[in-house]
Amino acid sequence: MVKVAVIGVGYWGPNLVRNLVESPLCSEVVVCDSEAQRLRHILRRYPGVRVTTDAQEVFGAPDIDAVMVSTPPKTHYDLAAATLRCGKHVFVEKPFTLSSDHAVRLIDLAREQGRTLMVGHTFEYSPPVRRIKEIVQSGELGKICYISSTRVNLGLHQKDSSVLWDLAPHDLSMLLYWLEETPREVMATGKDFVQPGIPDVAFVFMRFASGAIGHIQVSWLAPSKLRQTTVVGGNKMLVYDDTQHMEQVKIYDKGVKYRDPDTFGEYHLSYRMGDIVSPQIETYEPLQAEVTDFLESIIEGRDPATGGEQGLRVVRVLEAAERSLSNSGHVEVLSREAAYV
Amino acid sequence: MVKVAVIGVGYWGPNLVRNLVESPLCSEVVVCDSEAQRLRHILRRYPGVRVTTDAQEVFGAPDIDAVMVSTPPKTHYDLAAATLRCGKHVFVEKPFTLSSDHAVRLIDLAREQGRTLMVGHTFEYSPPVRRIKEIVQSGELGKICYISSTRVNLGLHQKDSSVLWDLAPHDLSMLLYWLEETPREVMATGKDFVQPGIPDVAFVFMRFASGAIGHIQVSWLAPSKLRQTTVVGGNKMLVYDDTQHMEQVKIYDKGVKYRDPDTFGEYHLSYRMGDIVSPQIETYEPLQAEVTDFLESIIEGRDPATGGEQGLRVVRVLEAAERSLSNSGHVEVLSREAAYV
Amino acid sequence: MVKVAVIGVGYWGPNLVRNLVESPLCSEVVVCDSEAQRLRHILRRYPGVRVTTDAQEVFGAPDIDAVMVSTPPKTHYDLAAATLRCGKHVFVEKPFTLSSDHAVRLIDLAREQGRTLMVGHTFEYSPPVRRIKEIVQSGELGKICYISSTRVNLGLHQKDSSVLWDLAPHDLSMLLYWLEETPREVMATGKDFVQPGIPDVAFVFMRFASGAIGHIQVSWLAPSKLRQTTVVGGNKMLVYDDTQHMEQVKIYDKGVKYRDPDTFGEYHLSYRMGDIVSPQIETYEPLQAEVTDFLESIIEGRDPATGGEQGLRVVRVLEAAERSLSNSGHVEVLSREAAYV
Amino acid sequence: MVKVAVIGVGYWGPNLVRNLVESPLCSEVVVCDSEAQRLRHILRRYPGVRVTTDAQEVFGAPDIDAVMVSTPPKTHYDLAAATLRCGKHVFVEKPFTLSSDHAVRLIDLAREQGRTLMVGHTFEYSPPVRRIKEIVQSGELGKICYISSTRVNLGLHQKDSSVLWDLAPHDLSMLLYWLEETPREVMATGKDFVQPGIPDVAFVFMRFASGAIGHIQVSWLAPSKLRQTTVVGGNKMLVYDDTQHMEQVKIYDKGVKYRDPDTFGEYHLSYRMGDIVSPQIETYEPLQAEVTDFLESIIEGRDPATGGEQGLRVVRVLEAAERSLSNSGHVEVLSREAAYV
Repeated sequence: MVKVAVIGVGYWGPNLVRNLVESPLCSEVVVCDSEAQRLRHILRRYPGVRVTTDAQEVFGAPDIDAVMVSTPPKTHYDLAAATLRCGKHVFVEKPFTLSSDHAVRLIDLAREQGRTLMVGHTFEYSPPVRRIKEIVQSGELGKICYISSTRVNLGLHQKDSSVLWDLAPHDLSMLLYWLEETPREVMATGKDFVQPGIPDVAFVFMRFASGAIGHIQVSWLAPSKLRQTTVVGGNKMLVYDDTQHMEQVKIYDKGVKYRDPDTFGEYHLSYRMGDIVSPQIETYEPLQAEVTDFLESIIEGRDPATGGEQGLRVVRVLEAAERSLSNSGHVEVLSREAAYV
Repeated sequence: MVKVAVIGVGYWGPNLVRNLVESPLCSEVVVCDSEAQRLRHILRRYPGVRVTTDAQEVFGAPDIDAVMVSTPPKTHYDLAAATLRCGKHVFVEKPFTLSSDHAVRLIDLAREQGRTLMVGHTFEYSPPVRRIKEIVQSGELGKICYISSTRVNLGLHQKDSSVLWDLAPHDLSMLLYWLEETPREVMATGKDFVQPGIPDVAFVFMRFASGAIGHIQVSWLAPSKLRQTTVVGGNKMLVYDDTQHMEQVKIYDKGVKYRDPDTFGEYHLSYRMGDIVSPQIETYEPLQAEVTDFLESIIEGRDPATGGEQGLRVVRVLEAAERSLSNSGHVEVLSREAAYV
Repeated sequence: MVKVAVIGVGYWGPNLVRNLVESPLCSEVVVCDSEAQRLRHILRRYPGVRVTTDAQEVFGAPDIDAVMVSTPPKTHYDLAAATLRCGKHVFVEKPFTLSSDHAVRLIDLAREQGRTLMVGHTFEYSPPVRRIKEIVQSGELGKICYISSTRVNLGLHQKDSSVLWDLAPHDLSMLLYWLEETPREVMATGKDFVQPGIPDVAFVFMRFASGAIGHIQVSWLAPSKLRQTTVVGGNKMLVYDDTQHMEQVKIYDKGVKYRDPDTFGEYHLSYRMGDIVSPQIETYEPLQAEVTDFLESIIEGRDPATGGEQGLRVVRVLEAAERSLSNSGHVEVLSREAAYV
Repeated sequence: MVKVAVIGVGYWGPNLVRNLVESPLCSEVVVCDSEAQRLRHILRRYPGVRVTTDAQEVFGAPDIDAVMVSTPPKTHYDLAAATLRCGKHVFVEKPFTLSSDHAVRLIDLAREQGRTLMVGHTFEYSPPVRRIKEIVQSGELGKICYISSTRVNLGLHQKDSSVLWDLAPHDLSMLLYWLEETPREVMATGKDFVQPGIPDVAFVFMRFASGAIGHIQVSWLAPSKLRQTTVVGGNKMLVYDDTQHMEQVKIYDKGVKYRDPDTFGEYHLSYRMGDIVSPQIETYEPLQAEVTDFLESIIEGRDPATGGEQGLRVVRVLEAAERSLSNSGHVEVLSREAAYV
């Protein structure tokens, strides 16, 4: 049984608290936020939790085993580093950090301290995303050609974070999880319509060493919520629509058939059309699976599914995309010699 | 009453023939195709038309007033030039030509000959596209921020034309028609998965002098047909879905509200949510309107809605996109000093 | 090769003419309509057809082998009887006749004359309806429990025919085709909102000897077009949506699992949830298959798929439903002793 | 501030507990259930509530002001009567009771005791249902012709209650709320496929004195979840789809236009087609509004929106429908002389 503190109960943190309170692996929950009002709200719902407005109290409490950091991204590094230095396990919400340097330092620190470091890429725990991973791994789709993802809706504009750092981490963590590789080249374009200097619409294009390409469209300025990802393989194609209750994943038995190129020339291709299958998807809450993975990785002394390196590779792509976006879409090459990934 | 020849009755040409046969403005229809099999098929349906396998016969026939060219793009220039040189009016299917040089020469030739030159950008005659033009012009959406368009499905791979020249002309003609400006910068990325050297997936990004941006995603490798365009304005947003029977256009009364920036800082913005309206759209056939415009522009001696210059500006963007695509997404700047546009 | 006359080229007849003109089994097409304006319209498109405003001319022409009757329902009986009496084959649009007496007399007459009698239940030739027939016959769904069908939209109000006779024949022909039985009991309710005495909204409930039940909802007063049929079997369930381009048919691998009733009591049932499969459906035009079946049945001297008896059983259910509707939903029992069915 | 006990925390009761715990109008929450396991689950989430397995303890506690009954329907009458006899206010989940006699007795008892009696017709507190009420009342739709409602999905079969008593109360409470009248005639058909004697598919048809008709289709044997209600008025039509996030309500500006019947005959009608508007709908939780109405009606001594009489009229229609269903769809006439409604 683990004793866990949650720092930050703004928009997302209360969901972490709820899952901890209900987890049989968690024996005590401490909640820390600088705004007392938020703590009162938490206490009304969960009268059994301990609360404090002082993060130092959390770090100094010897009975707290682990800290979950759910604060604005710019504070992630300091809070996670402080947690690890106190010898506690740490969970950091996505985006992990705002620079890959910080991410590397946290990975090193966790290794030195022998503590669990986990990043909250919740989508990698979601039933449809895991099911798609199985489908991709099974080879059913054939070799993956390209993945195109759209994640748009109206709001929520962030004061100190672009749409890239806000929405793209979801798609990037999914893509890298499915493809099991990091892009070699990243390009991004976009624009800041509402707040000068903070892009609210962005398009990211990626080339992978395997030959696959990826494209992500993110926007805070869109009339309706879209969360749709298309995975095109050599044999079959797949669409994942996260806004659907039913039929979140559809597999299309479609493809291009090649005929003998020597005899007929390269143009003799035809199309194969077949059934569409929407596989039944389990329906557990991704966040519960994520919190359980964090607690179990602490108890069992093993790595979580979404550890620091998984967080780092997403940060590295975001960094490159941001550089490209500031530089008129210049091609950013991700070096293979990086310390990690 | 106009006497019209159609050259090329492969995939699209028979639709031109049908509309000419039924038009009260057309007194005779001549059909020309190098494949006799296709002419037999036409004759079975329209026993009253004249047919020939020889284009020279068309050019030499003094009683033919106008020619509609519906052949592969690489033949457009030669056929259209020959038509104009014979003193006949000409209609060329999209894409107009494969180079802007050719497009400029045809425009010049039509001017010299005093004949009508029209390009088949059918979408500019479609009821929803025209209705959106009215909505944009009315100012209801506010200043246009960005337009994002997706046009994908499985097939039809072309032997000598990329997905860019095949599908993007539709979206480009719509965007330029609505925005009434040509982009200053064009970038494109993509890849050739099926046939080496012929991109089948492409993404085009455009910056306009007005501050607007445009994004077009086209693919021949997609599991299901999508034709969706989002227009985001400062006040309202609009979605046009061409695969819908009903509710092809939806206007979202949504936007970002700005508060006084001096007093509260730039972050005091909130969101305005309102009704969604799907305006009733007329239901005539766009191609019929297009053919009528061609015939009337000949009879009345006036310019058609989609003349050579409209065709040229689309070709110029396609050319720039193709250069960028071949050049790793390099930013292509469209000069303002171009002879036209 | 068959020489065929079409009587009636109002709303639907021109489609028959088009398919006859293009059929390699038909050597000549004669078109008859009392309105000369309609004949001129036909001639413009099909200059090769013969036209007349006089039905007697059709009946008297020795070279006409067969007549397709596409006139208002109340004229079906007289025209079909006259055709058969002249020794010609006859095709009658649905609804076959307005009384089962008339239907029986036409069946008898066709038998006496040794001529083909076919009823235009086009849906029985449509690819999804045929595919569903195969699925039902294969036993994949298990024993059919119930079929519920909805066919509604705004208009088109008929002057002399209720919504029952206008829209329900489609659903009835599909249901009887799939189930291969005629209901034993029919009840109907509804109301006449727009024109007194002509119901424009109706609900039909049917019990079959097999234990299955059927329900049909038809309306001329509905805000949007719905054509959806649900088939619930003991093992799987199926939805057919005729307004969809893609995924017209979906098979749900869902059902109720029964446990041992002796041990645990009748309440120990649970639900089986599985994949959803949308089988690929062929895409030919149903009307072409129907016209071909008519011509081939004449040439080969065999019965068409939708002969007089198929038409009769639909008329018998419509008659019973109409009686029930006029009688406050009274249960109408269809006698097993009827001459046919 | 009210002290409230909840009896029954199976499927739905925990939602009542949650809303009471968070309500500023409720000072104490007592939870009663015969299964200790369920109470432990409640205590884990809400450590501050009092629990008991003995309903008599609730009735005997002088400090408990009100009881919310969320147990199986067959126990509603006894528990509600016991509550009222102890002088406490009572809230009963839908369906109110299993007979109108019981419903009338509870209404009388509440009146004698001077206590609040409320029935949990949650839909009457839901934002789209309330918005539709405003639209109907405003006259925008014109005179209501008919309402057709479908509420189907796979499961959950009840041991001692038919699909009629399980699902139809939602639609009935909405219909009667919007129409402000009780039907004069009720007919129902259906069948018991899974458990003998317990219909799992049912169709209910109703005639109202105003001329309107209503139709409800409910099923526990359907492949996918449908909750759709169509309201057809003389001027406009409306569709309410409860499974949608966005666009739950759509208003269609469509209708039949009547021309002068004296001059042209009854058949000169045409159709008016117009825009489709999806009004923005508020997004509060209906259950919170319902619990607040219960607590406020106690505090203010006023009637709740869904009091005993609203519950009774739904029970009377359900009773009639059940009689009709057992009697082959016989027309059941609801007497106007009933004590209530």
